[in-house]
Amino acid sequence: MFESAEIDHAVDKETYEREVPRLRQELLEAQYDLLESRRAALVIVVAGVDGAGKGDTVNLLQKWLDPRQVRVHGLGAPSEEERERPPLYRFWRRLPPRGKVGVFMGSWYSQPILDRVFKRTKNTHLDTSMEHARHFERMLTYEGVVLLKLWFHLSKAEQKARLERLASDPRTRWRVTRRDWDHFERYERFRKVSARALRESSTDYAPWMVVAGGDARFRQLTVGRAVHAALTRASRADTHQPPPPMPPTPPAVDGKTVLDTLDLTRSLPKKRYRDELERLQGELNALVRHRRFQGRSMVVVFEGADAAGKGGAIRRVTAALDARAYYVVPIAAPTDEENARPYLWRFWRHLPKRGRVAIFDRSWYGRVLVERVERFAEPADWMRAYAEINDFERQLVDHGTVVAKLWLHIDPEEQLRRFQEREQTGFKRFKITDEDWRNREKAGDYRLAVSDMIDRTSTELAPWTLVEANDKRYARVAVLRAITSALGEALEK
Amino acid sequence: MFESAEIDHAVDKETYEREVPRLRQELLEAQYDLLESRRAALVIVVAGVDGAGKGDTVNLLQKWLDPRQVRVHGLGAPSEEERERPPLYRFWRRLPPRGKVGVFMGSWYSQPILDRVFKRTKNTHLDTSMEHARHFERMLTYEGVVLLKLWFHLSKAEQKARLERLASDPRTRWRVTRRDWDHFERYERFRKVSARALRESSTDYAPWMVVAGGDARFRQLTVGRAVHAALTRASRADTHQPPPPMPPTPPAVDGKTVLDTLDLTRSLPKKRYRDELERLQGELNALVRHRRFQGRSMVVVFEGADAAGKGGAIRRVTAALDARAYYVVPIAAPTDEENARPYLWRFWRHLPKRGRVAIFDRSWYGRVLVERVERFAEPADWMRAYAEINDFERQLVDHGTVVAKLWLHIDPEEQLRRFQEREQTGFKRFKITDEDWRNREKAGDYRLAVSDMIDRTSTELAPWTLVEANDKRYARVAVLRAITSALGEALEK
Repeated sequence: MFESAEIDHAVDKETYEREVPRLRQELLEAQYDLLESRRAALVIVVAGVDGAGKGDTVNLLQKWLDPRQVRVHGLGAPSEEERERPPLYRFWRRLPPRGKVGVFMGSWYSQPILDRVFKRTKNTHLDTSMEHARHFERMLTYEGVVLLKLWFHLSKAEQKARLERLASDPRTRWRVTRRDWDHFERYERFRKVSARALRESSTDYAPWMVVAGGDARFRQLTVGRAVHAALTRASRADTHQPPPPMPPTPPAVDGKTVLDTLDLTRSLPKKRYRDELERLQGELNALVRHRRFQGRSMVVVFEGADAAGKGGAIRRVTAALDARAYYVVPIAAPTDEENARPYLWRFWRHLPKRGRVAIFDRSWYGRVLVERVERFAEPADWMRAYAEINDFERQLVDHGTVVAKLWLHIDPEEQLRRFQEREQTGFKRFKITDEDWRNREKAGDYRLAVSDMIDRTSTELAPWTLVEANDKRYARVAVLRAITSALGEALEK
Repeated sequence: MFESAEIDHAVDKETYEREVPRLRQELLEAQYDLLESRRAALVIVVAGVDGAGKGDTVNLLQKWLDPRQVRVHGLGAPSEEERERPPLYRFWRRLPPRGKVGVFMGSWYSQPILDRVFKRTKNTHLDTSMEHARHFERMLTYEGVVLLKLWFHLSKAEQKARLERLASDPRTRWRVTRRDWDHFERYERFRKVSARALRESSTDYAPWMVVAGGDARFRQLTVGRAVHAALTRASRADTHQPPPPMPPTPPAVDGKTVLDTLDLTRSLPKKRYRDELERLQGELNALVRHRRFQGRSMVVVFEGADAAGKGGAIRRVTAALDARAYYVVPIAAPTDEENARPYLWRFWRHLPKRGRVAIFDRSWYGRVLVERVERFAEPADWMRAYAEINDFERQLVDHGTVVAKLWLHIDPEEQLRRFQEREQTGFKRFKITDEDWRNREKAGDYRLAVSDMIDRTSTELAPWTLVEANDKRYARVAVLRAITSALGEALEK
């Protein structure tokens, strides 16, 4: 959930000062359009990590929007009045009418997340609360309320740096309380619990938008644009029609994605490669033959751009395995049989029985990658696919199947080099088609799709491993290491 | 859930024999339309009480439809192959392709319901399973599968009569096993668990249809028509469009509703009325002043046709209460303020604080009554309202609010008599309008709406009480009895 927000996003001063006046103008216009149309109300939920700019955002909204049409609700503990009614009462009573904007600092998410962080409740309670939140928001969406749910995030390092900076300056020391450090000590737990909560309550009608809070200019532009999009959406809402799914997450205002954090210069000399490969293959072989694996199974997903080296990496994995212990499922265009059924059908039919490893060379992620970018799937279809995929993988993990997901990443230059090499090498020629060349032109769209995929489907149950693959040797060892460690950890439990 | 299925439905032989040939013709035509259009697959889930005609229905479908395009899956325990994969694997592998029909006896509902009946799991597990079922079906619905979920029901008395009949005949005695009697002993529990499961998994895209199983002709015609509607729906399904909500439940083939079970001749002589009224008012007064009620609250909902006597009954209730302990919320047309917000807003704002009773003279049920019948709300809106209302009332009950819901029922003759009386009595004249007369013409639509409302919102947390109200004295006492007993039971817990 937070992968994209934990890379160093930033906007320079010049860009910021150029953008802001226009943005403010657009915000005001959109706000008046909404007020005039009175088609929907806009509810902005402001939540997230302390110190990630929640307060600053609320101040900003009051400055950038016409404050007469905006009500800010900073909700602490419920009042006597409110405690005497069901928990949602306090939100119902503050619901803005159509045409207006309500900003909620503190929402129906606050209590369930904190309760779980402090272990006052269990995961099933959290999930039930998130289900209730989905129901509540689904109803609101149908009834003329547009929701913008903003989660402000700081990485652990950023959070620590911030607290230390404040504490070291006598003028700001008072801002850092014992409670802040207490919360910081629970950072990992808070991150884990909120990732689960956000994933469970991200729907196609009201998805969470995670905002990197570290850089103020980046954050402010991101929020401003998101609010503008939400105001526009609200002023065009159609009552008596089911609300259309939310538009896809916009690209980050600085254009960066989680793929930019990869160090593609990583490589491995031949000698170390051979040693490592051999060691890991031996380890994998032993794990798959392990007594405990005979009651389990494994699914390995390979995804990556064309020529990223999936085939070569898969061969290094299968070389470690007994032929009866695995099979490779190459995913190409669906057959007629498959096309006549829901899209997950063609993956369900290949699920491994116990003691087996199924290696998917491309997978169900095609829905949110190629089908999204090439527009084979409607936005509504690939947007609901994230939840469906998480649900599918949860079923696998609940059943005892170990799921490893690998994204092999190369840069456009390396891809070009490999394409040219393939064209020149006779026996590799079949591997390159006109389509591959066309796909290269959509590199930007693919980056965005990959970034969304990682943010929305890297779960604690089935996380993604991003593999730097410009150097094939480095990539193959990294792939084997990811698979053996996933399998090793699962068998220890 | 089962209210409408527990009344004595029956179809006479003559009607049956007249209807069947035409129905069979229509079924075949609809099946070929589907096969030709290949727009969706039809999945029929056959579930419910033993002996309620599940097997007979499956045989019938094979006889009435072209059996080459229908696959019946009688699912018992999962095979070795299936146990090695996640639970839904066995359904995925049997999913029919577009154009065809799959009938599932034994489905993703069987195990969760039985596990709960035999107390191997808790309610939270059941709810989670139902959530997974909703996700699965939502995805299927979006991906070109139309679901028809049939639940075959027998009342406890019918079930007992059936077992005794079989056991008393030497030729059929072998059909009744120890297991059947075991199941019968768990009838109440099975009924309760399955009502919860069905309610939680009835959605606007895949609602359950409860079929009264006692009379074979009634059952067969009901199923035949439902399958015909589902085939038609499937052959017109639009891929790449979100599926439209299911059409409303059709009227029972014999035209009967749960309202037909009410004995409207019930009455109370004046003397007994006075005694009873006084006793119950005293009881209610004591309950509301009870120490334990000071931490609770109560919501009483009055619904009923025009002139059913709601006002008079409410006055008999309020006469028992201290003025500070209650207030009456008359629900008329929404104000501008209310119209600008989601429809439940105007009820949330009137929720009672602790120690108080809020009496709603008409309520949120307007959505599924007048708004449905008068077409003020779109079908999609009032259909999702059942789940939203159940969710709303669950929040009340979870919070400790006692919810009593009363439907005051009179027959059309009594209504006419009261209308005429009102027109003749000066001070009652304001109570009768042209609209009241118009509403009378829609009596049939209202009956259907009331019947659906009771089936879909009479929950174990907040059940409906149906009050025979042709005799005002009888009705008022029944109302007070329902309220005091709901409150008394709640305070004892």
